[in-house]
Amino acid sequence: MGLDEVSQKPHDRLSALLADDMAAVNALIRDRMASEHAPRIPQVTAHLVEAGGKRLRPLLTLAAARLCGYGGPYHIHLAATVEFIHTATLLHDDVVDESTRRRGRPTANLLWDNKSSVLVGDYLFSRSFQLMVETGSLRVLDILANASATIAEGEVLQLTAAQDLATDESIYLKVVRGKTAALFSAATEVGGVIAGADEEQVRALFTYGDALGIAFQIVDDLLDYGGSDASIGKNTGDDFRERKLTLPVIKAVARADAEERAFWVRTIEKGRQEEGDLDRALAIMARHGAMEAARDDALTWADRARAALTVLPDHPIREMLHDLADYVVARIN
Amino acid sequence: MGLDEVSQKPHDRLSALLADDMAAVNALIRDRMASEHAPRIPQVTAHLVEAGGKRLRPLLTLAAARLCGYGGPYHIHLAATVEFIHTATLLHDDVVDESTRRRGRPTANLLWDNKSSVLVGDYLFSRSFQLMVETGSLRVLDILANASATIAEGEVLQLTAAQDLATDESIYLKVVRGKTAALFSAATEVGGVIAGADEEQVRALFTYGDALGIAFQIVDDLLDYGGSDASIGKNTGDDFRERKLTLPVIKAVARADAEERAFWVRTIEKGRQEEGDLDRALAIMARHGAMEAARDDALTWADRARAALTVLPDHPIREMLHDLADYVVARIN
Repeated sequence: MGLDEVSQKPHDRLSALLADDMAAVNALIRDRMASEHAPRIPQVTAHLVEAGGKRLRPLLTLAAARLCGYGGPYHIHLAATVEFIHTATLLHDDVVDESTRRRGRPTANLLWDNKSSVLVGDYLFSRSFQLMVETGSLRVLDILANASATIAEGEVLQLTAAQDLATDESIYLKVVRGKTAALFSAATEVGGVIAGADEEQVRALFTYGDALGIAFQIVDDLLDYGGSDASIGKNTGDDFRERKLTLPVIKAVARADAEERAFWVRTIEKGRQEEGDLDRALAIMARHGAMEAARDDALTWADRARAALTVLPDHPIREMLHDLADYVVARIN
Repeated sequence: MGLDEVSQKPHDRLSALLADDMAAVNALIRDRMASEHAPRIPQVTAHLVEAGGKRLRPLLTLAAARLCGYGGPYHIHLAATVEFIHTATLLHDDVVDESTRRRGRPTANLLWDNKSSVLVGDYLFSRSFQLMVETGSLRVLDILANASATIAEGEVLQLTAAQDLATDESIYLKVVRGKTAALFSAATEVGGVIAGADEEQVRALFTYGDALGIAFQIVDDLLDYGGSDASIGKNTGDDFRERKLTLPVIKAVARADAEERAFWVRTIEKGRQEEGDLDRALAIMARHGAMEAARDDALTWADRARAALTVLPDHPIREMLHDLADYVVARIN
């Protein structure tokens, strides 16, 4: 992919437009992850933070605040807050999932140990909490407290709903909000709140982040099965092998006849997978149009995200957020 | 121990005096640990909460608020907040320490798994955060955010300072504040703040909780080596076998000659312990008066706790807090 093509990506355009703000966020993150007496903390945090994720969540906060005309200093604090919350959840997720790779590098739980990942995650949560208190906005605190609870509840739900065929689309949505959408929607909402946007605009920013996050996650689910055309890529089937009940599977299970149901019970619930089962899963999903139905859902959520933007000010950032919603689902089109 | 003797304990007298408040706290805890969709959450929480710890931290918050004349509803929220934070740290500690028993029962990480302990701990942190936001007091949020950071930093420090003979008394104090005193002092301080106590009284409540927590932890360290008279009880030496640098050991290391230092390097740093090493550790500590010196420190901290109370209103609760400081160190007298 050439540089020109990269620079067309909406989040790269947002990054370029908000480069000064983002530099301030990165400086604040470096400052607040320091610990005079426990050097393990910045070591573990730097390993993850400097691996360079897309910084999409802090970018959403900065974008929402600037779009609503904010001129104060606290969007920087809030952007660092959401990145710290995100980093903390990644540290804990890797312990929970027993992961060994993250952002192309060995995970912290592998390089150090699970203990460090748990405790440094807790430290980052508490630092994020200090950062948001500094904004002096109780409303922002309320939004982020609720988002934290949704995230944690979604994670526990994912643990208990995993491999349970009774998991339906409403439970799936709760898990997805916990995994992704709750922090996206909090990121955009607090940007609007700190900017003093009116209620309609704050609601629109929430809706945009929520719908974007859900679309993003459904697309991830689809790509794991090779995208809507079910062409098999190199990571195809990881979710199947890990017996995850993602949206295409949930849709196929809901439409299953007795024989297909027995297949899902064996492969997902009991985890007794055999050679050829992934192909059969893909065939069953194709028979019921499960991939297309999930793809339609993703496009509907992206539509909702774009539609929410109409009440926000006409501004280059609004166009980039619009394009970002397109981009998220373009991966499956 | 007879019922009469039990009823003499200062925390039992506090519990009796604050029984209505404590019932409200327990009801709020039960309400907020519920989760409609993730039953694992109340299961894990109830396992720990209903095992019935002493509820000392919420009791301190209620006592501080009532002592300062509070008549509103939010001391209940704050008491539930500190108990949730405490429970969350216990869940994470048990994962970090790979513990199997807590409050006389198998730990949650053993009954369920480490994943549930990590994620339910995160859930309780976020619920505690929601509870404190409901009080509408930014100052309370600031205090609890700072306490959370101190707790998490102390835990990481304990992890990295463990088995390192360079750990001195100033690092020990940071670890102890993280393990115990930061939540004690936050518990008493927020009680005063929510009651609108004056600055001198709020500072006194902080000092009381901080000093009480430090005394409490030093006493625990001493008891692990059999108390100040070094009589060997049934759990004597657990800290030694786990190579923990607790206060008596730190004092003995600081006064060690070359041969003794080699002993500590072998037993604590390298962990090569042999039959008879615990007796030798006790003998070395006795030679340097390390137990007595640690005991003196505990008594000094208890004195500080009691002295802080003088600026607080003359009230039966103040007497009970006074007696509680006596009681904490009475275990080693």
